[in-house]
Amino acid sequence: MFGNPRVPLSGERLRVTYRLTGDEREARAKAEGICLEQTVELPRDLVPAGDILNYIVGTIENLERLDLNHHLAVISYAVETTGFELPQLLNVVIGNSSLQPGVRVERLDLSNSLLDAFKGPRFGIQGLRESLGVEGRPILCTALKPMGLSAAELANLAYRFALGGIDMIKDDHGLADQAFSPIRERVPRCAEAVARANRETGYGCIYLPNVTGPSDRVLENALFAKQNGAGGLLLSPGITGLDFMRVLADDDRIALPILNHPSFQGSFVVSPEQGISPYALFGQIARLAGADGMIYPNFGGRFTLSRDDCLSINEGCVVSMGRIKPAIPVPAGGMSLNRVPGMLSLYGRDVVLLIGGGLMKQGPDLVQSCREFRRLVQEPDRAA
Amino acid sequence: MFGNPRVPLSGERLRVTYRLTGDEREARAKAEGICLEQTVELPRDLVPAGDILNYIVGTIENLERLDLNHHLAVISYAVETTGFELPQLLNVVIGNSSLQPGVRVERLDLSNSLLDAFKGPRFGIQGLRESLGVEGRPILCTALKPMGLSAAELANLAYRFALGGIDMIKDDHGLADQAFSPIRERVPRCAEAVARANRETGYGCIYLPNVTGPSDRVLENALFAKQNGAGGLLLSPGITGLDFMRVLADDDRIALPILNHPSFQGSFVVSPEQGISPYALFGQIARLAGADGMIYPNFGGRFTLSRDDCLSINEGCVVSMGRIKPAIPVPAGGMSLNRVPGMLSLYGRDVVLLIGGGLMKQGPDLVQSCREFRRLVQEPDRAA
Repeated sequence: MFGNPRVPLSGERLRVTYRLTGDEREARAKAEGICLEQTVELPRDLVPAGDILNYIVGTIENLERLDLNHHLAVISYAVETTGFELPQLLNVVIGNSSLQPGVRVERLDLSNSLLDAFKGPRFGIQGLRESLGVEGRPILCTALKPMGLSAAELANLAYRFALGGIDMIKDDHGLADQAFSPIRERVPRCAEAVARANRETGYGCIYLPNVTGPSDRVLENALFAKQNGAGGLLLSPGITGLDFMRVLADDDRIALPILNHPSFQGSFVVSPEQGISPYALFGQIARLAGADGMIYPNFGGRFTLSRDDCLSINEGCVVSMGRIKPAIPVPAGGMSLNRVPGMLSLYGRDVVLLIGGGLMKQGPDLVQSCREFRRLVQEPDRAA
Repeated sequence: MFGNPRVPLSGERLRVTYRLTGDEREARAKAEGICLEQTVELPRDLVPAGDILNYIVGTIENLERLDLNHHLAVISYAVETTGFELPQLLNVVIGNSSLQPGVRVERLDLSNSLLDAFKGPRFGIQGLRESLGVEGRPILCTALKPMGLSAAELANLAYRFALGGIDMIKDDHGLADQAFSPIRERVPRCAEAVARANRETGYGCIYLPNVTGPSDRVLENALFAKQNGAGGLLLSPGITGLDFMRVLADDDRIALPILNHPSFQGSFVVSPEQGISPYALFGQIARLAGADGMIYPNFGGRFTLSRDDCLSINEGCVVSMGRIKPAIPVPAGGMSLNRVPGMLSLYGRDVVLLIGGGLMKQGPDLVQSCREFRRLVQEPDRAA
């Protein structure tokens, strides 16, 4: 039906490690299915002979038993199948196969030509530290909340956080463009409040508004934020699509550090049997998309990633990816000051500690609570 | 810390039905957690008294036992929390709670003011039928594949499909902007091939290219498609973000029917314990976003939605949603001609039958296979 079409290919391969549920026979059948499903979407006997059958169809490079009912399969794809674009890369990695249970992406091995197609984080860990003027200690972050406060009330909160010595103040991810605090009112007010506090303290605190929004407004939100004093951006790529992170990170008119928020992405990571591993999604993929910092739900809070999941995210944030810079982990979610020493000893100093409600819970004097938070990371032994 | 802030609210509520894993005590605790997590993200004792505590925090409207270990909770939210935008609506419905296992969105009950904020599908079932000139029978659809063929080869396939009487020819969702078939070459060639076949047959077949791509190219891709003879569009909103569907559907310069492809959305729907029900995601939410037709993996093919899941999607495609038009179900994935009679008796006539590889498998004469497909739906008894 097709003849024997020639396809111009470089020979470079993208390698994806999948965790497959099933015994060896089932896992092999699943892996063979993925090789077709993620590329030609045809039964093998209908695939045109020649280059398409030999190189476009995925190849099982390795199949390894994890336990009786789980296997790891490494499948390689011609890098050209991705079109060297993030959306189609995601589509090749786990597009239709996301609809088949018992398939989870564990990690990606990106070839050089794919890595060259992406700029990754503009700042990375070192760039973020330089822009904040924070060296040698964890970075302190908190969130403006709750939803329902006016822009003026949120700005007042931001002022107190900044006065207390917080380095990064982000919008809660639920602050969008609601009538009670429209983004075009909130951003200038909060940025001005933080700048005013910085003049008093001499610190370099930044405000990171949430620019997640309608697809035809995200870029406009980010440009508005930049022009109105924001020092960084918050984006939930589960909602906007991951490639919007790249658009914002790559835009020279914006040039601000970006925090990646995991909202709406939980279905990918909460089951070990399906989806994408936290390592790949909140590490490798988010870095490819350009995130400078990765917010994720720390273990022991309200969410259910395990300690090992969290450590694997941190590893994915810094694992070597060619010239793609490392990103800084931002464990969060139900954290409080008494968790700080433990987090520091587990995660080390290259971390952003994001404490939201926990700071408010600390006592009525928010400025004082922030100062206490800051003392903890400057003299971590004090509280150990 | 906050005083007692007033929030201007209409009193209208968005109602979300969640399926929660756990006995009654666990389910109630989970529901109470969701009320906070999806809105204020603060422990209850820190939420400002007054309007925020009373109206912004979600309210458990009902908690009902399904079985020993599962409950249905109806939680309502002030419609204003959504900002009347799809991204923030998704964020309120299942943003952070997606990261908590044992939470699944079963259905939405959208208030009038929320429904009024969305236009929904531009065509809907009736509009699509009118634009195709197909009444009283199922609509026939197939896919251009495999990845790796050149634009000329794909156009040749499109010509034969159209000659055989297919109504809608879509790109395979894996055809993006790869060097072997760049979108700017593929669209005009395939559209021209379909138009040429239409001149011979007198039919009104349309070509629907895949416009899924980088966030800064999706709209451009869609406008290019429109200007170059496309009769509809294919979009994978799991990859681009759901709101891009709305942007394309609402744009008067485009004004083409849109098929919703479920790629990358599997993690939301494959587990009954978490994510979003197929009814809500491929029915209600995709309609809100403006999809005219919903491609989903039919039961009995390569994927694992159940017969009941499929029927629930079809129900979500047509359930009353104010002025939001019904969308047409497009069951697909490993379908073949011998499944047609069964699908017709189960799904009725208001369905798009999408058969890709199955048509190629039918025999070497593709035009003949398409004619056979068409005869089956015009005289369904013949094959029963």
